[in-house]
Amino acid sequence: MRTGGLRRASLAITEVRLTPVLVADPPLLNVQGVHQPYTPRLIIEVLTADGITGIGETYGDTAYLDLARSLADALPGHLVSELNGLFTLADRVCGEPQDVSDAVDVGGLRGVRTADKLRLSVVSGFEVACLDALGTSLGLPVHALLGGKIRDHVDYSAYLFYRWATHPGGAGEPDDWGAALDPEGVVAQARRFARTYGFSSFKLKGGVFPPDEEIAAVRALAEAFPGRPLRLDPNGAWSVETSLYVARELAGVLEYLEDPASGTARMAEVAAACDTPLATNMCVTTFPEIREAFTTGAVQVVLSDHHYWGGLRNTRELAAICRAFGVGLSMHSNTHLGISLAAMTHVAATVPNLDHSCDTHYPWQTEDVITERHTFCGGRLAVSDAPGLGVELDHEALKRLHQRWLDDDGAMRDRDDAAAMLRADPGWGSPAVPRW
Amino acid sequence: MRTGGLRRASLAITEVRLTPVLVADPPLLNVQGVHQPYTPRLIIEVLTADGITGIGETYGDTAYLDLARSLADALPGHLVSELNGLFTLADRVCGEPQDVSDAVDVGGLRGVRTADKLRLSVVSGFEVACLDALGTSLGLPVHALLGGKIRDHVDYSAYLFYRWATHPGGAGEPDDWGAALDPEGVVAQARRFARTYGFSSFKLKGGVFPPDEEIAAVRALAEAFPGRPLRLDPNGAWSVETSLYVARELAGVLEYLEDPASGTARMAEVAAACDTPLATNMCVTTFPEIREAFTTGAVQVVLSDHHYWGGLRNTRELAAICRAFGVGLSMHSNTHLGISLAAMTHVAATVPNLDHSCDTHYPWQTEDVITERHTFCGGRLAVSDAPGLGVELDHEALKRLHQRWLDDDGAMRDRDDAAAMLRADPGWGSPAVPRW
Repeated sequence: MRTGGLRRASLAITEVRLTPVLVADPPLLNVQGVHQPYTPRLIIEVLTADGITGIGETYGDTAYLDLARSLADALPGHLVSELNGLFTLADRVCGEPQDVSDAVDVGGLRGVRTADKLRLSVVSGFEVACLDALGTSLGLPVHALLGGKIRDHVDYSAYLFYRWATHPGGAGEPDDWGAALDPEGVVAQARRFARTYGFSSFKLKGGVFPPDEEIAAVRALAEAFPGRPLRLDPNGAWSVETSLYVARELAGVLEYLEDPASGTARMAEVAAACDTPLATNMCVTTFPEIREAFTTGAVQVVLSDHHYWGGLRNTRELAAICRAFGVGLSMHSNTHLGISLAAMTHVAATVPNLDHSCDTHYPWQTEDVITERHTFCGGRLAVSDAPGLGVELDHEALKRLHQRWLDDDGAMRDRDDAAAMLRADPGWGSPAVPRW
Repeated sequence: MRTGGLRRASLAITEVRLTPVLVADPPLLNVQGVHQPYTPRLIIEVLTADGITGIGETYGDTAYLDLARSLADALPGHLVSELNGLFTLADRVCGEPQDVSDAVDVGGLRGVRTADKLRLSVVSGFEVACLDALGTSLGLPVHALLGGKIRDHVDYSAYLFYRWATHPGGAGEPDDWGAALDPEGVVAQARRFARTYGFSSFKLKGGVFPPDEEIAAVRALAEAFPGRPLRLDPNGAWSVETSLYVARELAGVLEYLEDPASGTARMAEVAAACDTPLATNMCVTTFPEIREAFTTGAVQVVLSDHHYWGGLRNTRELAAICRAFGVGLSMHSNTHLGISLAAMTHVAATVPNLDHSCDTHYPWQTEDVITERHTFCGGRLAVSDAPGLGVELDHEALKRLHQRWLDDDGAMRDRDDAAAMLRADPGWGSPAVPRW
């Protein structure tokens, strides 16, 4: 048996670079408030002994950054192929972050916040960077390190938002999308998404206006795009009764209803009383939450976010659990850049039961840290066969977005949609749910 | 970003060699009868464009061999890195085997027999061969292709059997273990296992004698090896009442009771009424069986067999499901050779929740197809860091054992423990369960 030429020692990590950035984000509305003008992301570079650099991306809020620094300090010497060992290492060096509670996560949109989940979200960025370095080193695309793609394209869905034309006071980076605050605005936004990117399924972020207004918006979408898959996601804004009312009103119109009510128990009540499948990226965001949700039938579709779940390999394990329990799978997206979109596309290409087109915020992000932006064509992305993730870091752009983070007085370094909304409208109230 | 030197085309499969063999097996007893003098295994060689050969092993009965031939014919051109694609390919080319029923599998010891499971058992041998070729090609051990080892040794358990000294009429290959048909014989066998291999946990294959005799044997083991983990596995031989009787009699003595009763419903009844954890390699042997067993609490430990489950990567997915549902994990073993033991050891080294030492028949197999037999030391195997599986095919031995298969008149080409028993003892009855 011939021995390959690669020396394992060449896979050893010699240096880790962490670069927090602030990236422009439009004034998108949700039940928790409004997106800030800039949102934090963390870019991770892993350098190996044979001169390869792998890149990864994850949430950039302070709590994540603190953990990432501890993990980065411990990584030199670790092989980029030791992906299982990343978790063991993180358990050992990350300790318990200071500000964890069982409340929902910052922004209110990431589900429960636990020490384990924070740590996994950090590990995910390092896992992707290691996979990128390993693939580049071996000459294999990341999908091949996950067992190989079983499709050449991954379908994405248009992610529609109620939004203002500009941030209060004209803060942040302007765009030409204009406001969308009623059914006409939502349909116009959807038409532009369909025309520009070819998306043919549509998700509306709800929980912003009283349910009847959002029902009207979905009906307008159904009329404008007959037969296309439609989704509505109020991020747990509604009571069980309201959820059932919306489900009845939109019976036969929705592909699925996403997180109508907050918490597994309420979701199970809704699921038991309606035929519309329920999706979630809020009540099932960690492995320990699966058992209750799956045995009570609370959710029919899990929207995986590889950041929450601890990376691409954990996402595949989540997919296996969903298959075994007859639960559908798709992908969640939070504000992210091109590195994470590449990672999502690689893992999505390998999962047999990817039953629905994936969410992505990407079209809303006009800034990026990669040299060539991804281009949606026919609503899909081609799966790269280039070594690693198949994207390259734009060092100039990274420097510029990092400088913005350095220049920030701290106000934007943690995402807080409620605070942003209260600055714009001191009488807004609170993001507590159920609101309706 | 540097591109690695490996051309993906070099990973393309150019040839597949299937070699069915018959290997010596001692007269080990179980509820289904007695092991035949020889048992079939299938050795798979996968050759790649860059001259690498990967090896795998799976069940060799005719039904498996037929499917393996169809898959082998379709493989040239497939990349050894396309592991997810193996399943898609097998679904397409293997079709429905002729003789599948919902009965338990040949030998009665492999759980339910379905077309899917037969196909997965075949795919597993090819998956291991592809992983071996890929690892050898890349210079990485198989465990690194599974995310890397998190332990340097894997613990195994002594697998004790009631047995005759020789096969009827002196058939097969003789050994010097002698008979073990009572508590004294079982303890003597256990002492030799402990002395020779260092095993410190012990599993007795039961279902052979009336329960009180087997209870006495386990008690004798407990006395001979105080504080050591002990297991008893009657392969579903008992009624719910008998299972509960044995559990009561051996309360506090057993680490777990393995498949006392047959079928998930009976296992759930037993589990509900006793404190001893129940393990299985019979009622949970496929992904579709998991849901009922886990939601009814029928099993507390799943004994994975990577052959049933479709390979090493599927075994890791099973482990993830067990973690999410708080179910323990260990490994099952059926008669196997050194290739499969290497594969088991690689995957076991990567699974965080390997909660119990693994079963292995290996010490009973005196013949092998690898150049250097594995050596248990302190009851463990060291995890190889050599490229691929770290074992090499002994072509002379393979030829010899294949010749035995060619020379066989068909009598041994399918394992049938009941037929072997009935030849020895025409009045034996039938393997129907529950027997007691």
